Amino acid sequence: MRMEEIIRKKRDGGVLSPEEIDFVVRGTADGSAPDYQLSALLMAIWFQGMKPEETARLTLAMADSGPRADLSSLPGIKIDKHSTGGVGDKTTLVAVPIAAACGVLCPKMSGRGLGHTGGTADKLEAIPGFRTSLTEAEFLDTVRKTGMSLMTQTGEAVPADKRLYALRDVTATVDSLPLIAASVMSKKIASGCGGVVLDVKAGSGAFMKTFADAEALAREMTAIGRAAGLRVSALITNMDRPLGKAVGNAIEVEEAMEALRGGGPADLRELSLALAAEMVRLAKGGTAEECLARAGRALDSGAAFETFGRMVECQGGDRRALERPFPLSTCRLELKAPRDGFLTRMETGEIGTAAVLLGAGRSRKDDPLDLGAGIRILARPGDRVKEGQPLAELFAAQEELLEPAAARYLAALSFGEAAPEPQPLIWARTGGD
Amino acid sequence: MRMEEIIRKKRDGGVLSPEEIDFVVRGTADGSAPDYQLSALLMAIWFQGMKPEETARLTLAMADSGPRADLSSLPGIKIDKHSTGGVGDKTTLVAVPIAAACGVLCPKMSGRGLGHTGGTADKLEAIPGFRTSLTEAEFLDTVRKTGMSLMTQTGEAVPADKRLYALRDVTATVDSLPLIAASVMSKKIASGCGGVVLDVKAGSGAFMKTFADAEALAREMTAIGRAAGLRVSALITNMDRPLGKAVGNAIEVEEAMEALRGGGPADLRELSLALAAEMVRLAKGGTAEECLARAGRALDSGAAFETFGRMVECQGGDRRALERPFPLSTCRLELKAPRDGFLTRMETGEIGTAAVLLGAGRSRKDDPLDLGAGIRILARPGDRVKEGQPLAELFAAQEELLEPAAARYLAALSFGEAAPEPQPLIWARTGGD
Repeated sequence: MRMEEIIRKKRDGGVLSPEEIDFVVRGTADGSAPDYQLSALLMAIWFQGMKPEETARLTLAMADSGPRADLSSLPGIKIDKHSTGGVGDKTTLVAVPIAAACGVLCPKMSGRGLGHTGGTADKLEAIPGFRTSLTEAEFLDTVRKTGMSLMTQTGEAVPADKRLYALRDVTATVDSLPLIAASVMSKKIASGCGGVVLDVKAGSGAFMKTFADAEALAREMTAIGRAAGLRVSALITNMDRPLGKAVGNAIEVEEAMEALRGGGPADLRELSLALAAEMVRLAKGGTAEECLARAGRALDSGAAFETFGRMVECQGGDRRALERPFPLSTCRLELKAPRDGFLTRMETGEIGTAAVLLGAGRSRKDDPLDLGAGIRILARPGDRVKEGQPLAELFAAQEELLEPAAARYLAALSFGEAAPEPQPLIWARTGGD
Repeated sequence: MRMEEIIRKKRDGGVLSPEEIDFVVRGTADGSAPDYQLSALLMAIWFQGMKPEETARLTLAMADSGPRADLSSLPGIKIDKHSTGGVGDKTTLVAVPIAAACGVLCPKMSGRGLGHTGGTADKLEAIPGFRTSLTEAEFLDTVRKTGMSLMTQTGEAVPADKRLYALRDVTATVDSLPLIAASVMSKKIASGCGGVVLDVKAGSGAFMKTFADAEALAREMTAIGRAAGLRVSALITNMDRPLGKAVGNAIEVEEAMEALRGGGPADLRELSLALAAEMVRLAKGGTAEECLARAGRALDSGAAFETFGRMVECQGGDRRALERPFPLSTCRLELKAPRDGFLTRMETGEIGTAAVLLGAGRSRKDDPLDLGAGIRILARPGDRVKEGQPLAELFAAQEELLEPAAARYLAALSFGEAAPEPQPLIWARTGGD
């Protein structure tokens, strides 16, 4: 079998055989397939797509490219949660402790942020002393003691995905539905969990710009997961605006802690509860309403916040820091409304980029982060504003980072005379039955 | 400027700016652009194409990625000849000595064969003692003494093309019109010649399967060459069947020598004269008819054969060998007609592949060649055959190579009850005026 023939077949719109897909993944994992052939194949897949059966095979082959995690020492089913990435999306920090407080075991690996989307592993590092890098024993032990653990992906997990993702990232082939589905689901299958709740984002701040694309991705990921024997549920949620009012790292953890104490923005609370309820449902069954009520009790009783605090303690973090405001970077700019009217729309990807410009995210994988940099959103789509009223507060470590980010932020806003049509936060739920 | 953004722009159908193209070519030549990004860009170009102004810029930037050859020590205009590649195409060995015998200076670099198409540099090595690897001084000296020289491309010429071609070859991005045009014309511009005759092949044995595609390529290459100040003429010629009756290396040189002595297959003679006439016309002017008559005299007088012989001698070859049959590989198979009827069609690319299977060509760049392997075609499209009549003779170094090649050859043939429509050998001539 020759890589060149496989590339040509996909380039010409052909359907790769299971053997061809296995050959590619084996070559990816063992290094025998060179980068330049893989990136040509990725671009051909970007143009031609893959049939569901190709994507499913790719996913399974990737999941088996390294050892699957062994979580068998934890009793019963373990539930994972995955977001396809958004701006201000800190739901992992809220939904996972809620689910864990409901008795769901949640051993969760999290990624780093890249481009306009943040990563949970970065955010957690804003908690003094917190370690996201754990041994397997520490990870399992934390879950055993608290019901949950959040750690960074280890290098050896799903080596084929690691290599393909690194290539996609620098060859403009990230935003391909089958490649996204295979990347996400291979990691979920290899994680050793028995179920996963997917938060598939749709809108200007997501990879999938439209509801239809997000639904297609959700359907594909659900089908792949089920074929691999997982319980899968997917929510399709609104990323046409940032989630909550905080974008950054420390500033997002602070907002998540507010939510865990029963406050915080309504959209963050609603989505976190919905995701946690699905996690409970996958683990323990019951109706959606029952699970949602149970999640609400775990949140409002303080049990979820207590769970998160104990997890932080187990992973070396200072749990008292969770009760106080998080320190933000000292250079500050207040962005004022340029006119009277309704804020009608935010180009949400651009809001994420403004946060990257402030130092809160990475353009390239090895860029350093300023955990205190970020944005506090003071007006959101649907709000009526007066000229000169503050729209957002920007935080950065250096004065000169503020102006370019402010310009980017302002350019991402649209104003009008009438309030925009309200949009639902949760568009649809697929699967989980 | 970032490669990833350039890849994304082309992927999305954008037009690359001159600065972006220069950035890519600079990165290609100096090594700063990694292989994996170049191959992703090449695949994006394969899908999206390039506008003529992008292709022209790419060509010039590539031509200037290394030093242009300095042929100024040879007087007057020098003429090059290029074929886009076919099966059994040995016209360089006939047309160039004809043109040289007419007083045209022809310093010509030739390539190696790859895939189903052969390369002149390989064929020449079937001449005992002949050296295709020359110093610049030897090359110029041979042209000065005989009017022509044929040598292999040197490594330093057009480094950007060398790197891109090597990548295209293994990433299924060879057959892209703008990439072919830029590759060919960058080498021609860098060769230092003042004019070039292009033989653009169309049909089942060529990169361009249809006349329309071949014409588009011819038009693009002609426009690029003229923009760079070259005299350019292009013939669009039939590669829906092999040229002549010999496919291989030694066996093709033998047939070319028959043509140079005034014999050989009619199509080889006709095309060689037409190409030589265009070379004469670019160098010396005159009408097409005058130039063709002149070429015919140079061939039929024996002057062209004499020129070739002297060139062979200058480059260390045994010129007496040109008068004798060339030794072929000793294992031999005669392929018989499976039925009565007309031979209506040859899948010419498959004929080339059969020759590769015999050992006459390369699947990969570093495969060794058997110069004595090859095919003698005994029946061509339009011929009426009787069951059991010999269709071809196959030659290889090992018995076990014969059967697979024979099967491939036979599968490439179509038979019918009626003679196929005759096709012209030369479909069109563009430019040259």
